[in-house]
Amino acid sequence: MKEKIYLFGVDIGGTSIKIGLFKNDGQLVEKWEIPTNKINNGNEILKDIAKELKSKMVEKDLTTEDMIGVGVGVPGPVDENGVVHCCVNLGWGVFSIADFLSKLMNMPVKAGNDANVAALGEMWRGRGKGYSSLVLITLGTGIGSGVIVDGKIVTGDNGSGGEIGHITINLNEKESCNCGKQGCVEQYASATGMVKMAKKILEKEGANSSLIAKKNLTAKIIIEEAKKGDAAACEVVELMGKTLGIALGYVACIVNPQIFLIGGGVSKAGDIVLEVIEKYYRMYAFHATKNTPIKLATLGNDAGIYGAARQLL
Amino acid sequence: MKEKIYLFGVDIGGTSIKIGLFKNDGQLVEKWEIPTNKINNGNEILKDIAKELKSKMVEKDLTTEDMIGVGVGVPGPVDENGVVHCCVNLGWGVFSIADFLSKLMNMPVKAGNDANVAALGEMWRGRGKGYSSLVLITLGTGIGSGVIVDGKIVTGDNGSGGEIGHITINLNEKESCNCGKQGCVEQYASATGMVKMAKKILEKEGANSSLIAKKNLTAKIIIEEAKKGDAAACEVVELMGKTLGIALGYVACIVNPQIFLIGGGVSKAGDIVLEVIEKYYRMYAFHATKNTPIKLATLGNDAGIYGAARQLL
Repeated sequence: MKEKIYLFGVDIGGTSIKIGLFKNDGQLVEKWEIPTNKINNGNEILKDIAKELKSKMVEKDLTTEDMIGVGVGVPGPVDENGVVHCCVNLGWGVFSIADFLSKLMNMPVKAGNDANVAALGEMWRGRGKGYSSLVLITLGTGIGSGVIVDGKIVTGDNGSGGEIGHITINLNEKESCNCGKQGCVEQYASATGMVKMAKKILEKEGANSSLIAKKNLTAKIIIEEAKKGDAAACEVVELMGKTLGIALGYVACIVNPQIFLIGGGVSKAGDIVLEVIEKYYRMYAFHATKNTPIKLATLGNDAGIYGAARQLL
Repeated sequence: MKEKIYLFGVDIGGTSIKIGLFKNDGQLVEKWEIPTNKINNGNEILKDIAKELKSKMVEKDLTTEDMIGVGVGVPGPVDENGVVHCCVNLGWGVFSIADFLSKLMNMPVKAGNDANVAALGEMWRGRGKGYSSLVLITLGTGIGSGVIVDGKIVTGDNGSGGEIGHITINLNEKESCNCGKQGCVEQYASATGMVKMAKKILEKEGANSSLIAKKNLTAKIIIEEAKKGDAAACEVVELMGKTLGIALGYVACIVNPQIFLIGGGVSKAGDIVLEVIEKYYRMYAFHATKNTPIKLATLGNDAGIYGAARQLL
């Protein structure tokens, strides 16, 4: 019997699906994308994926004998058994993605939340290599996060492990987060949150801010202006860093990881983001956890396909 | 060869050492206590324990052939390898308690932090039976806590997993916690913290409080008076509940356990404590985790010996 060494990693997003063909040593053989077809309540998505994977197997002269299986990352809660619990973004209700795709592909399938599997990806082949416990925070439109303990994703009882973006950090907040609660980390530290905060600050006290002249304010612009010393922009960046620094302190008191990784679009700004998070983390963390390293993630958008595949190993 | 079915669970405290002889099905054969002899920087403690265990083995006609080993709970940080990282309370520095005691006893030894192993105890034979992920909060002089994921203690990188009492809950606090930080959960929700808060409230606005007449104010008295409707006492209990409710919400966003358990002296007051924690938890928790049950722990002071033993299985 042939040794199975190939596996697919699939990262399903709202507009595109990223796919990677890997070897079990972590080598990426090929990666590509297909569009996410959301018609029929997302009923076509897994069929599209199966068709795509099968055609790649033909192209590469691979049979099911060569394949370990397919790992999938989903933008919603997924439990330990590979059951998706609603994924509004894709039109999905509750069903076993693992069973469904496994039947189509005739090979093992594992599924997890996209932010959780991204953490696993960073552990496998990114900045988290060599660690067995880490927490990845992905700063994008929203905030994703994944908690790894003993080399395994902490999925949680109903897939809400690593929902660090929804920690209630500000009890006095009046505005609501997308989740319906008030005062979530995401409201201050995601790209969207940073833009909202900037607008608030500009209304109150930003008459002289360089941000005023910007037409489409983005987190990227805010960080650039903060680097140049604009006071309002700096205030937004400080609030982002303080919010995350405090929240990472909470995480450290609960799972005490070996390392924190910061990824996602906002993290592309680099050191300025790390430094401000670190400043507040060191200030508010429990003494025994004060020196936990905080580093930039390195796999970027590929963390999802790496981690999706890694679930099978 | 005989089947090994017996094991010891040892819970080392600052004044006494609790010992239990168990069968591997969780049956407690016998439990007793010896005093903690802290002379010589705590050098006698493990020798005393070994002597005690050996004499119990003779009494029960047990040999090392019958014994699975010894599990120990320590009031300080212990890493995955059974190395204690300072235990001020006992006079201990850094050393491998597992190696040391294993040599004395000639059988396997596992060691963990006392609050962490208590959580394991509740999972084995207490209110956490049947669950594989849970968080136990022990409300006593301080606040201990243990996080269990996938049936295993989350020890953390340097033994600070489950230090929920040291989450910075109040950024504006001026007074320091024992840990040196300001605004820790423990400062508002431990028995000591509740008494401090009561004194603060009495100074400011407690002229008519029934607490004024109490000579030695304790958390127990405060809760009793709160039950009778005393406003100052109620304020302290609300603050305790709010602090813990919010903190458990953080925990849920990070590890999303199947159940929360509340133990320790303060929890003996029963439903009033649970209800006030629950009220605030349901208010501030992320929607997907809002219904996580919060229950009273059931093993009381024995959770430590049960959990200490359970480490070996």
